[in-house]
Amino acid sequence: MSTEPKRGRTGGRAGRQAARLAAHVEHVPYLTRTLQPYEVVNEEGLATIEHNADTILEEVGVIVRDHPETVARFAAAGADVDGDLVRFPRGMCRSIVQATAPSIYTQHARNPARNVRIGGDAMVFAPNYGSPFAHDLDNGRRYATLTDFENFVKLAYRSPNLHHSGGTVCEPVDVPVNKRHLDMVYAHLRYSDKPFMGSVTAGSRAADSVEMARIGFGGDLGDRTVMTSLINAASPLVWDASMLAAAEVYAAANQATIITPFILAGAMAPVTTAGVAAQTLAEALAGMAFVQLVRPGAPVVFGSFASSMSMQTGAPTFGTPEPSLVLYVVAQLARRLGVPFRSGGALCASKLPDAQGAYESANTLQATVLGGVNFVLHAAGWLEGGLSIGYEKFVLDDDQLGMMATFVRGVDLSPNGQALDAIRENGPGQHFLGTAHTLANFETAFYRSTTADNASYEQWVEDGGLDAAQRANKIWKDQLAAYEAPPIDDAVDEELRAFVARRKSEMPDELG
Amino acid sequence: MSTEPKRGRTGGRAGRQAARLAAHVEHVPYLTRTLQPYEVVNEEGLATIEHNADTILEEVGVIVRDHPETVARFAAAGADVDGDLVRFPRGMCRSIVQATAPSIYTQHARNPARNVRIGGDAMVFAPNYGSPFAHDLDNGRRYATLTDFENFVKLAYRSPNLHHSGGTVCEPVDVPVNKRHLDMVYAHLRYSDKPFMGSVTAGSRAADSVEMARIGFGGDLGDRTVMTSLINAASPLVWDASMLAAAEVYAAANQATIITPFILAGAMAPVTTAGVAAQTLAEALAGMAFVQLVRPGAPVVFGSFASSMSMQTGAPTFGTPEPSLVLYVVAQLARRLGVPFRSGGALCASKLPDAQGAYESANTLQATVLGGVNFVLHAAGWLEGGLSIGYEKFVLDDDQLGMMATFVRGVDLSPNGQALDAIRENGPGQHFLGTAHTLANFETAFYRSTTADNASYEQWVEDGGLDAAQRANKIWKDQLAAYEAPPIDDAVDEELRAFVARRKSEMPDELG
Repeated sequence: MSTEPKRGRTGGRAGRQAARLAAHVEHVPYLTRTLQPYEVVNEEGLATIEHNADTILEEVGVIVRDHPETVARFAAAGADVDGDLVRFPRGMCRSIVQATAPSIYTQHARNPARNVRIGGDAMVFAPNYGSPFAHDLDNGRRYATLTDFENFVKLAYRSPNLHHSGGTVCEPVDVPVNKRHLDMVYAHLRYSDKPFMGSVTAGSRAADSVEMARIGFGGDLGDRTVMTSLINAASPLVWDASMLAAAEVYAAANQATIITPFILAGAMAPVTTAGVAAQTLAEALAGMAFVQLVRPGAPVVFGSFASSMSMQTGAPTFGTPEPSLVLYVVAQLARRLGVPFRSGGALCASKLPDAQGAYESANTLQATVLGGVNFVLHAAGWLEGGLSIGYEKFVLDDDQLGMMATFVRGVDLSPNGQALDAIRENGPGQHFLGTAHTLANFETAFYRSTTADNASYEQWVEDGGLDAAQRANKIWKDQLAAYEAPPIDDAVDEELRAFVARRKSEMPDELG
Repeated sequence: MSTEPKRGRTGGRAGRQAARLAAHVEHVPYLTRTLQPYEVVNEEGLATIEHNADTILEEVGVIVRDHPETVARFAAAGADVDGDLVRFPRGMCRSIVQATAPSIYTQHARNPARNVRIGGDAMVFAPNYGSPFAHDLDNGRRYATLTDFENFVKLAYRSPNLHHSGGTVCEPVDVPVNKRHLDMVYAHLRYSDKPFMGSVTAGSRAADSVEMARIGFGGDLGDRTVMTSLINAASPLVWDASMLAAAEVYAAANQATIITPFILAGAMAPVTTAGVAAQTLAEALAGMAFVQLVRPGAPVVFGSFASSMSMQTGAPTFGTPEPSLVLYVVAQLARRLGVPFRSGGALCASKLPDAQGAYESANTLQATVLGGVNFVLHAAGWLEGGLSIGYEKFVLDDDQLGMMATFVRGVDLSPNGQALDAIRENGPGQHFLGTAHTLANFETAFYRSTTADNASYEQWVEDGGLDAAQRANKIWKDQLAAYEAPPIDDAVDEELRAFVARRKSEMPDELG
């Protein structure tokens, strides 16, 4: 098992490999699936769930909390309004969405080579989002800071497997809550050149995000979509003013939003898969219709976030079979609707980058990739139901994303892939290690893990007998040490800094 | 997140839950998939691979090493023989297999409630196989012993998620190599009542296994299949005498065999997925045809074991994208052939039950379940490319198997599953925790993990801040402490012991 083709030991390969990886980073700004998505419900079942979603919208309705403009907008489009309760005639939201929402769109990045396509067969991986805590093996779990935020932006920038810089990768808790968005958007623009997400916690913060993006992209955005931002429902069946206000700002500027019912099944929805799916569809349809009413054609993503519940503690659980089934079903519903889909990630309930965290994350990521998710938030770093982002977890998840990039390319059925001549020429009982076909394909034949230890037991012991998390600890430190910021025009950087300084000076600090 | 329905705290539920789990164990002797398998190659691609397999059999052929009886058997059936090299006219092996091999069969267990179906939509989980080492957190890695073997038989017997006792769960290295099989088969018959596997390392050991099964099952087996045993090819394209002799004994007694090309891609086959698949099909077709020539209609399983290779060390790697693609493709080929399929498991290269081990195992198990594998060897305990079986790994994998049992049931689209009335009655903005639908479904709504910690961070710290492996360490000890052997007739036990003693006395010890 220790046999290695000779060329594997030459110093020259490392250099060629590095060059090839660099090229890879340049040329794969997002994944393109060649495999059909996995489906768990047949047409009849999907039609039933769609019918139920329409029934929910028609009979139960959606509360639009503290946002009379949105109520009025829905009323004008044909909805039945009773105070803040909005009921929709059957099919109304679907018609509005299908009339104008794009099935796929381009999110532009500061570096055009990093532009991503969102929708169709494209798949985009973005890091963790929203955690108030950070975790690493050296310091354990503590409140996240702006330094942590910047570190994760840098790690995502360095990763060939993450296509997107994300948004609130973690909460920079050391910055006043009403000013964080300025530092976060600045970090995405300054420390990365990948596409990113704007602030959604208030309409004014969304407006600040749009203005900073305008500066960062060097002036007028025109119709370019340069942000994809996360708008969560207050499930069950409530849309809150702050999220609607942010969505309105983004849609008006032709910026993309992800309309996401956020559901702990049993608390914010029924405990059953089909029930969660129907409610998710109803809530998302209302939200996506709102976006299309604000600006027909504005990019909008159907989001779904669903967890199961621990019967012992009532806490959310991840990587379990029920959320996977929800993901597969809602992905099917999104494809039928014809809009891009966001769900999944490397979700887990574990507090540590241990076996629990890995089983749960892998289970979620498998459903994410096989289900055909287009935009994958939380693809790296998630711990503890999202309460924490982990440095080692980020590195370990990132390696899994690399594997998925290989998987989605599917099976090579070219003559070289069939390898029939290789088998012909080799003959029975002869190993393939030195054959021409093996030598020609060896370097690219297998995904090369950045975190797995595949050495012999004896070698592994000699190397310190480290577990995966301990190896990952070294990797993120090496990555941060090797980080170099992408270039930015000095004048642009100055204007961004001036904008941040001015906006901060205009507001008193608010504590979170 | 700490809200819990009131009934969750009553003592009565634990009792009801225990009763329900016990009933569950009794009534789910194997899984039945309701979901369609995931497919990665279209009809045209499959036909190409089948054509290539026929070309390999026709042009390259298979070496039948040191077993002239088998060469003669193939010649009589129409193969072209040149010494020990056997070439098969196109379609010959396929015709032989399809003419008589059953698409599904019953393997009887000593307890008829444990009988399993192998093939079709049925899925059977069996533990790890073949490891010379054992690992646990207390003692680290050391050679496995008969005590380890018996412990794992007991753990598999206790598990509601494992349907099968397996075979050489680990190598009892403290027993002479020519006598191990007697102790192993005895342990399966005495310490479990689940179905099991016989010895394959020599024809005489297979005959001993059949005889012990006859005794254990209380006399004449008739046509009952009571063992499913593992016959590996010596890839590429070689079948060895010892495995053929064992397969011959089993087939003649209508006992099932799993015909498995065992392939480290790049060493025993080309590095490409389609190449591995074609060679696997060719080798398996020859082996399965052999079984059908010995006894038409004898149950035979198409096996596939494929790993990728580390480019750094040449060692086998697991849980990577390439072996998953091979599994999906070969599963499709097995379904087209119409025979049961064995592959996958909880395979990993990690030396530890850490994040690497879990990611790799979960990735493999996902492909195993979604690919539609019928017989899953190595479903629990596998470490270090199979060199080691882990106690904690066994417990952690077992929990994953429980999750899969829930997953394969798919989506409940009954009125209760749709939960439309629950959403109607609840209304927007109201949580579902206390609703009638939630209370009626809560106990069975979500898979309840036996190893995950889903408590709050604070509670987890108070509970010792253990990682998953540390929690699993307690679980296997508790399981062994709670173990009680299933009943066996005293006379049967005596006869088994006498047989083992007699056979041991007839042979001098051979060291492995």
